[in-house]
Amino acid sequence: MSQEKEIYRSELAERQQVIKNEGLPVIVMLEGWSAAGKGSALGSIIKFMDPRFFRVYNMDAVTEEEMRRPFLYRHAVKMPMKGQFSFFDGSVMDEVTYQYLTDEISKEEYDAKVESIVHYERQLRDNGYLVVKFFLDVSEKDQKKRIEKLLDSKNTKWRVTKKDLWQNKNYKKCKKVFDDYIKRTDTKECPWHRIKADDKDQVESIIANTIIAEIDAAVKKPHKAEIQSNPYELVKMPKLSKIKLEGKELTREEYQKKLKKLQKELSALHNKIYRKKIPVIIAYEGWDAAGKGGNIKRVASALDPRGYEVFPIASPTPEEKNRHFLWRFYNRLPKTGHIAIFDRTWYGRVMVERLEGFCSENDWKRAYNEINEFEKDLTDWGAIVIKFWVQIDKDTQLERFTLRQNTPEKQWKITDEDWRNREKWDLYEKAIDEMIAKTSTEFAPWFVLESNDKKYARIKALEIIIDEIKKRL
Amino acid sequence: MSQEKEIYRSELAERQQVIKNEGLPVIVMLEGWSAAGKGSALGSIIKFMDPRFFRVYNMDAVTEEEMRRPFLYRHAVKMPMKGQFSFFDGSVMDEVTYQYLTDEISKEEYDAKVESIVHYERQLRDNGYLVVKFFLDVSEKDQKKRIEKLLDSKNTKWRVTKKDLWQNKNYKKCKKVFDDYIKRTDTKECPWHRIKADDKDQVESIIANTIIAEIDAAVKKPHKAEIQSNPYELVKMPKLSKIKLEGKELTREEYQKKLKKLQKELSALHNKIYRKKIPVIIAYEGWDAAGKGGNIKRVASALDPRGYEVFPIASPTPEEKNRHFLWRFYNRLPKTGHIAIFDRTWYGRVMVERLEGFCSENDWKRAYNEINEFEKDLTDWGAIVIKFWVQIDKDTQLERFTLRQNTPEKQWKITDEDWRNREKWDLYEKAIDEMIAKTSTEFAPWFVLESNDKKYARIKALEIIIDEIKKRL
Repeated sequence: MSQEKEIYRSELAERQQVIKNEGLPVIVMLEGWSAAGKGSALGSIIKFMDPRFFRVYNMDAVTEEEMRRPFLYRHAVKMPMKGQFSFFDGSVMDEVTYQYLTDEISKEEYDAKVESIVHYERQLRDNGYLVVKFFLDVSEKDQKKRIEKLLDSKNTKWRVTKKDLWQNKNYKKCKKVFDDYIKRTDTKECPWHRIKADDKDQVESIIANTIIAEIDAAVKKPHKAEIQSNPYELVKMPKLSKIKLEGKELTREEYQKKLKKLQKELSALHNKIYRKKIPVIIAYEGWDAAGKGGNIKRVASALDPRGYEVFPIASPTPEEKNRHFLWRFYNRLPKTGHIAIFDRTWYGRVMVERLEGFCSENDWKRAYNEINEFEKDLTDWGAIVIKFWVQIDKDTQLERFTLRQNTPEKQWKITDEDWRNREKWDLYEKAIDEMIAKTSTEFAPWFVLESNDKKYARIKALEIIIDEIKKRL
Repeated sequence: MSQEKEIYRSELAERQQVIKNEGLPVIVMLEGWSAAGKGSALGSIIKFMDPRFFRVYNMDAVTEEEMRRPFLYRHAVKMPMKGQFSFFDGSVMDEVTYQYLTDEISKEEYDAKVESIVHYERQLRDNGYLVVKFFLDVSEKDQKKRIEKLLDSKNTKWRVTKKDLWQNKNYKKCKKVFDDYIKRTDTKECPWHRIKADDKDQVESIIANTIIAEIDAAVKKPHKAEIQSNPYELVKMPKLSKIKLEGKELTREEYQKKLKKLQKELSALHNKIYRKKIPVIIAYEGWDAAGKGGNIKRVASALDPRGYEVFPIASPTPEEKNRHFLWRFYNRLPKTGHIAIFDRTWYGRVMVERLEGFCSENDWKRAYNEINEFEKDLTDWGAIVIKFWVQIDKDTQLERFTLRQNTPEKQWKITDEDWRNREKWDLYEKAIDEMIAKTSTEFAPWFVLESNDKKYARIKALEIIIDEIKKRL
């Protein structure tokens, strides 16, 4: 082993301790031409690292499960925790450019995906990740030689895929798309390192030393995330104080009659979206005791239990807290044709996390845009995204809290925290107004459910869900 | 809605609160003939339940990911947390009997799987789960009628699968296997409820009322788990005190030479097991500061990083603590052709959990057998299971602790807990002797790595791994 190799391998192993101490998560994306030597370079540079604290992902084969999720899903769920490394051998670039080159997706779809990738990578950086991207370059002639060499030996022949051969045959066409892709995703947050892969030892040395230098730079001068201005069309929404609650009620008879009719209708629609493979995401936010649980129950009980899931969102686990705040929601996205209902959501970022100081001011101010981008990706994928704000007034909340406190079977539903949150009603109201104003995009607007009368709110929720699904069929 | 239906639906919804308070996890397995109405019965009885605290799984389609894991994996990873319900629409019976009936597996493989299922269900019950199993019976004639009715309507036609038609055509053959399966898996821990599915309303009523009755019984009289006697051949192992550590050392030169040679050999073998799709599980246990981390590093750095994972096992998260103690290991099993290395393992149950009182005496006494059954399933699946005990003496540990304490870069490796554990050395030694004696099965024996000289232990580990893989090729 050359002395140089020994040095950078040791230094990289030492950086594991550095990123652990700094709580810095590092993502290395290794892209490049087939047969450029990505895998072996990766295998070499990590030799001295502690294998308990990094992961290597070969992103070649997309599983069935993954195919039924948004295209960024399989990447997002693999993001490392604070202080750890994830290495991607081939990543989203390889996948998306190949789809485009083989006409699996249109130019328009391709452009949208590239746009999503730019957003996604920026979000990673802004949320504390260091993203180091490499592209290994090989000339047409050189690639041909390498493939032929692999084919020559019984031990390596099986590693040459049809895709590799296709790529070499279509080298010029691929090069044009690769160049364009790299240009468009070469951002200041996540710039590319393009390396000529002529000499194996040199490639490894450049990769290792670049990672080392980027870590040192990131530690020395932490990234300052900018607040992006919102690029999406917004729907104008009223402030909470302007929402009329009086008179929005139903008699028990009206309620029962409508409930039965609407549940039947939703049940039939569920069947249709299942067969058409349309995913649906229903997000519930609202005041404590606003009636989210009962509302969700009336929606869920109209659905085929094999085709939906309800996720109650509590405070994040350590695994969740130490990653991008959207990670735990990526992990809970429905499959195509399925419905996911969230009882509290990613909007916790701009409500409880903001008000309790669980994230920085920069974090929650950035989050409006990050959430809009996330929801844009979901709707681009084909999902119907429905967001409910369940609204009650302060007196109604007090009534319900008091009832819970005084009814033994309901006492588990009320905690000291609920009372503490109630004291901050005005601060929350301000935050909620801002949230609704900034995230009511055209593709994923908020719907307010007036819930002083829970029956009214349930019927309205069912009507909206039915409406939104019908629009899509 | 009939009054009776309203009553059992409400009662079932109330039981959600009961199992939550009692911390009782409930698994309902609904099996039966095709077109017996499993799905609709399930959909009906859960109507009043709170959808945030139960899950329904349709187990029909086995995904690619799941196919590359042991057959119980896809069931095990879906076990509910304490206080929650999981409903399985079709479960392991349907899968295994169909494989046998269509000659996908031999009689011998089928018998082994049925045996595993009996173990698995008993383990669930013994670990605090309530398992309620139903089989919906339909006569040949009746099934035919039901299928024809489904085929008659455009809206339901698509729900009839080839398998359904096949089953009706082979009704008698299927019935024989079903009867036999039910007989063999009708245990006192998890008995079957066989229901004639003639009348839809009656079926729903029986299912709901049975679940209610079983919950009430389980709450009234908690299950007493028996300690099973070990049925497996054991390999005779020496006590720790009899293991010679002196003289088991290598010079730096011998070590470097052997290391290079063995890593090269292992690297080539990794390629072979990848192509032959053989999974490998390597489990490391040992005293604090015995050198597990460095040992694992020497193994891992010989492997292709895309084909292995290292799992450091710390104390369980709440999600893990509130399930069967093996759940978090089911979740970390390798895919076929991959290697999983565990830095600490499921043996925590009979060491730290036993000595710190994190589980009951009955729990850890049962665990030897539960672990043997788990490892038997892994080897039946085709895995190579290698278990290392990394052994040092008490003086060597003190030396290493002191070195860590006095070396700034190593201080993070030593905690107060390490010192506290050291005080319990004798208690641990007794527990480890018992563990090694009781779980050194012929299919998954323990290997002791003498590690007063870490170099010696690393070379021995590599040699054993190479040996065990070679035996299988």
